[in-house]
Amino acid sequence: MDNKLDRLQSKLGHQFQKEELLVRAITHRSAGSKHNERLEFLGDSILSMVIAEALFCRFPDVSEGDMSRMRATLVREKTLAELAREFELGDYLILGPGELKSGGFRRESILADAVEAIIGAIYMDCQMDRTRDLLLSWYAERLEQIRPGVEQKDPKTRLQELLQGQRKPLPTYVVLKVKGEAHNQEFTVQCEVEGLPTEIIGIGSSRRKAEQSAAERALERLL
Amino acid sequence: MDNKLDRLQSKLGHQFQKEELLVRAITHRSAGSKHNERLEFLGDSILSMVIAEALFCRFPDVSEGDMSRMRATLVREKTLAELAREFELGDYLILGPGELKSGGFRRESILADAVEAIIGAIYMDCQMDRTRDLLLSWYAERLEQIRPGVEQKDPKTRLQELLQGQRKPLPTYVVLKVKGEAHNQEFTVQCEVEGLPTEIIGIGSSRRKAEQSAAERALERLL
Repeated sequence: MDNKLDRLQSKLGHQFQKEELLVRAITHRSAGSKHNERLEFLGDSILSMVIAEALFCRFPDVSEGDMSRMRATLVREKTLAELAREFELGDYLILGPGELKSGGFRRESILADAVEAIIGAIYMDCQMDRTRDLLLSWYAERLEQIRPGVEQKDPKTRLQELLQGQRKPLPTYVVLKVKGEAHNQEFTVQCEVEGLPTEIIGIGSSRRKAEQSAAERALERLL
Repeated sequence: MDNKLDRLQSKLGHQFQKEELLVRAITHRSAGSKHNERLEFLGDSILSMVIAEALFCRFPDVSEGDMSRMRATLVREKTLAELAREFELGDYLILGPGELKSGGFRRESILADAVEAIIGAIYMDCQMDRTRDLLLSWYAERLEQIRPGVEQKDPKTRLQELLQGQRKPLPTYVVLKVKGEAHNQEFTVQCEVEGLPTEIIGIGSSRRKAEQSAAERALERLL
């Protein structure tokens, strides 16, 4: 276990003085009472603050609305789950038997929550300045790339606006397939755009998510 | 002006090195383009984080849900407006002519936003440790008094539970009056509780708010 934790700490870029904090941060509530939800609460607020400050300094002329949208993009579940995958966090999560069986180590919400909990744990381990530096290093590329305005719109909106700007017809979305039981469905949606081949497919746990995913792929082809 | 700003700084407990930050923080958007909304965005996130940390340390055994509810109570508009009134912030706000005429210096949302902006300004003036200490001093009594659980429930829920506990009939709410135009209405609601005189009135910008306000007054009489 210790060796494994060392690998995770090296990926995170932080060697814990109190390793029990890290263990707690990667323990999902399904695995027992010493789970990571309190640390997640703390870490969420620290991340929000550090990102707010970074955006405030980086974009001196941008409105609070745009800062707020950029922050939402940077701290949303999807982004945190991406970070988790960069850390290969799924390999380290401590899950209860039910979550283990159902693949909880791949679930975006569990991964994202664990990243927030790790942030809380790092903060408890070494206070603000070090935590801020570390978070800024995790986010360096994303902060470099983010821009106020357009990027914060969702893919369907962006696709629609792009096509409107080119005076093309709006895209249509067709549900091709729904599989799975009611609480665990998978939607397959096709996005049809004039001038693009018709195989643009999105998959997601809701119709809306599948459509967004398809729109994102359409945008990739068009931009 | 300077003398006036000194009085405000002494009430806040912070002498600004860069006084222009304070001026910006008390400038409402109605007064011009150098307004306080960016600082408000920053201050909001700092306050959330400092309160999260304080609750995390103060209540080592409380769930994230309870911490989250306590924080919501401590950082909501109503609480921030109370702080603003303790600082007599309304006397210092810089408002545009329209807001001045319509009494903007008394409006809770404007007062609360300015408190958040002042927190952002203090942070920009002196960084985290000092800002945290100051916020904890502003909140000392409220943090001392807050408890997980019951206080976080809204007044209508608390009133209902109180009456149920006494095996009394549930309260009824009657809208007595609605005035104003669609986007700016004022509701007057009466709350009828067995054993209490019938003049318990709440006023609010929505029916729900007016009912909550009436329930709060009923609770004050009953507790």
